[in-house]
Amino acid sequence: MSSKTQSEPLCLRAMGSFHVGGRRVQLAGRQPYQRTMSVGGEPVSINPNGTYAVEQMYVQYYLPEHSNGRGPLIFWHGGGMTGAVWETTPDGREGWVNRFLRKGWDVYVCDAVERGRSGFAPHPDIWPEGPITQTVDDVYARFRIGAAAGGYHQDPARRASYRNTRFPVDHFDAFCLQMVPRWTHTNDAMVGAFKALLGRIGKSVIVCHSQSGPLAMRLASENPGLVSAVVGIEPAGLPVPAPNIYDTPTLIVLGGNMDSDRRWQQLSKKIDAFAREFPTIQIMRLEELGIFGNSHVLMMDDNSDDIARRVDAWLQTAMPNARDLPR
Amino acid sequence: MSSKTQSEPLCLRAMGSFHVGGRRVQLAGRQPYQRTMSVGGEPVSINPNGTYAVEQMYVQYYLPEHSNGRGPLIFWHGGGMTGAVWETTPDGREGWVNRFLRKGWDVYVCDAVERGRSGFAPHPDIWPEGPITQTVDDVYARFRIGAAAGGYHQDPARRASYRNTRFPVDHFDAFCLQMVPRWTHTNDAMVGAFKALLGRIGKSVIVCHSQSGPLAMRLASENPGLVSAVVGIEPAGLPVPAPNIYDTPTLIVLGGNMDSDRRWQQLSKKIDAFAREFPTIQIMRLEELGIFGNSHVLMMDDNSDDIARRVDAWLQTAMPNARDLPR
Repeated sequence: MSSKTQSEPLCLRAMGSFHVGGRRVQLAGRQPYQRTMSVGGEPVSINPNGTYAVEQMYVQYYLPEHSNGRGPLIFWHGGGMTGAVWETTPDGREGWVNRFLRKGWDVYVCDAVERGRSGFAPHPDIWPEGPITQTVDDVYARFRIGAAAGGYHQDPARRASYRNTRFPVDHFDAFCLQMVPRWTHTNDAMVGAFKALLGRIGKSVIVCHSQSGPLAMRLASENPGLVSAVVGIEPAGLPVPAPNIYDTPTLIVLGGNMDSDRRWQQLSKKIDAFAREFPTIQIMRLEELGIFGNSHVLMMDDNSDDIARRVDAWLQTAMPNARDLPR
Repeated sequence: MSSKTQSEPLCLRAMGSFHVGGRRVQLAGRQPYQRTMSVGGEPVSINPNGTYAVEQMYVQYYLPEHSNGRGPLIFWHGGGMTGAVWETTPDGREGWVNRFLRKGWDVYVCDAVERGRSGFAPHPDIWPEGPITQTVDDVYARFRIGAAAGGYHQDPARRASYRNTRFPVDHFDAFCLQMVPRWTHTNDAMVGAFKALLGRIGKSVIVCHSQSGPLAMRLASENPGLVSAVVGIEPAGLPVPAPNIYDTPTLIVLGGNMDSDRRWQQLSKKIDAFAREFPTIQIMRLEELGIFGNSHVLMMDDNSDDIARRVDAWLQTAMPNARDLPR
């Protein structure tokens, strides 16, 4: 690790975590069942009846010693991932948590409901469906490391990545380790827990990725005054239902190599149309800035620091009235 | 949060995360299935065939600006929990991550295999059994907040906690939010990933809790020279198989109110017998030090700072040869 450390230490006035939101569910009338708790142990009887705490959200916070006074900035990861996506990059560089801390933001990182340290509810007793799990092959294609299905190969030398990719492809196998199962019926629960978080910490910037893009925009449109700005890193859709009013300053950042990906071509057009409808939405197409080859996880790409700087600069113009304390 | 912040900032020379260990599994010949990815969306076809990365472990690290030079200290949580148990206490005080950082330790916090940000493998395709989930009622009894089954009540005013409990009972509902499902066949995978972690960061102190106590002692006995010391907070058992040789400096910390808990009475006797067999094992019964009422999660109790100080002092005597740099 030592070769990767930053010369400048990170100084925090506070660091910790909490869980927020969720609901209580009672189960009754179920039969106890037997389970061996460890290999070689005796079976014990487990009583499934009682109270369950479900649909809460885990939040870890890092508050820099010298805050920039612009309020909290919350990182909200995408589908099949956790807050870890904002931490260290797969090749060991500092991720956006550290980068935005160094810019003086009060940083909050969440694991969306049902993922990571947020836990998940018993299935089928409380949740109707089980989780889905992504293959490594699918991650390779969907995250635009390499084109379409079939690009992944177990032998790294035989993988078909984009020639111009800025993703650290030599560390793709390390990246895959952070993927986790996800459920597909939990959007309302996710938005509900996030609203509870905003109720606790106040008006915030939301930096979201992929699946959470449309959810964050929905949250902003449904809760005027609670979200100071949205930064959507490659949002995987638009808010459902479509909002009548959307007036939150919003930056949508789109990476490269979308021309060979049918899904992203379509999404890109929809995002254009959405932004034409609501003037507070601005699109940053990295290719239009002469920056080519960014993947779907551009906060891990080799130019992640540069993109973080551009996002931070946009936030400064989008929130001109925020108190900007000296660092 | 501001009322809970420490006056002294935490300064880190590095902070980040990685995943370690695990294995790859290929699935083939499965039928694709349909799933609606979001409420109201169109069903998409999911191909379950391909490569899965499973049984890896998530590790988050915090390296203080001024290290005490005693090497890494790894926190390993108990059953149904994640690394969050070492972070902020339910009533908002600094947890052991911050406390041990302030003592100059290089702190690593893991989510054991299958929990939290480590993710879990598809069931039943790769893992034979599904997870089990604890009720809030069960947590109340098993974590010795209140005696035996039946002590929990939805109305906080009607809960039967121990009179002398040092657990912050007014925040029990917040504590429950951090419980997550667990599997029961993953001990070997957990130990394997932990061994991979030690291979990566080198000889370390392990501070473990409950379920991970016997696993950490097994790891230490099977890998001479990789574990510099074990601190077992209420280990929920002894290593299986029983070791022939065990020479790792080990402190076992036991809380209060075990006299009304049959399971802990038995465990306590077994731990005594184990410690008599191997002289590097020392038991710290808090009641024998005149400290009464500690729960099973004593790192969250109102005297958690005092216990952290005692553990740190023991580590200084147990590792007399470690280089002790000035802070």
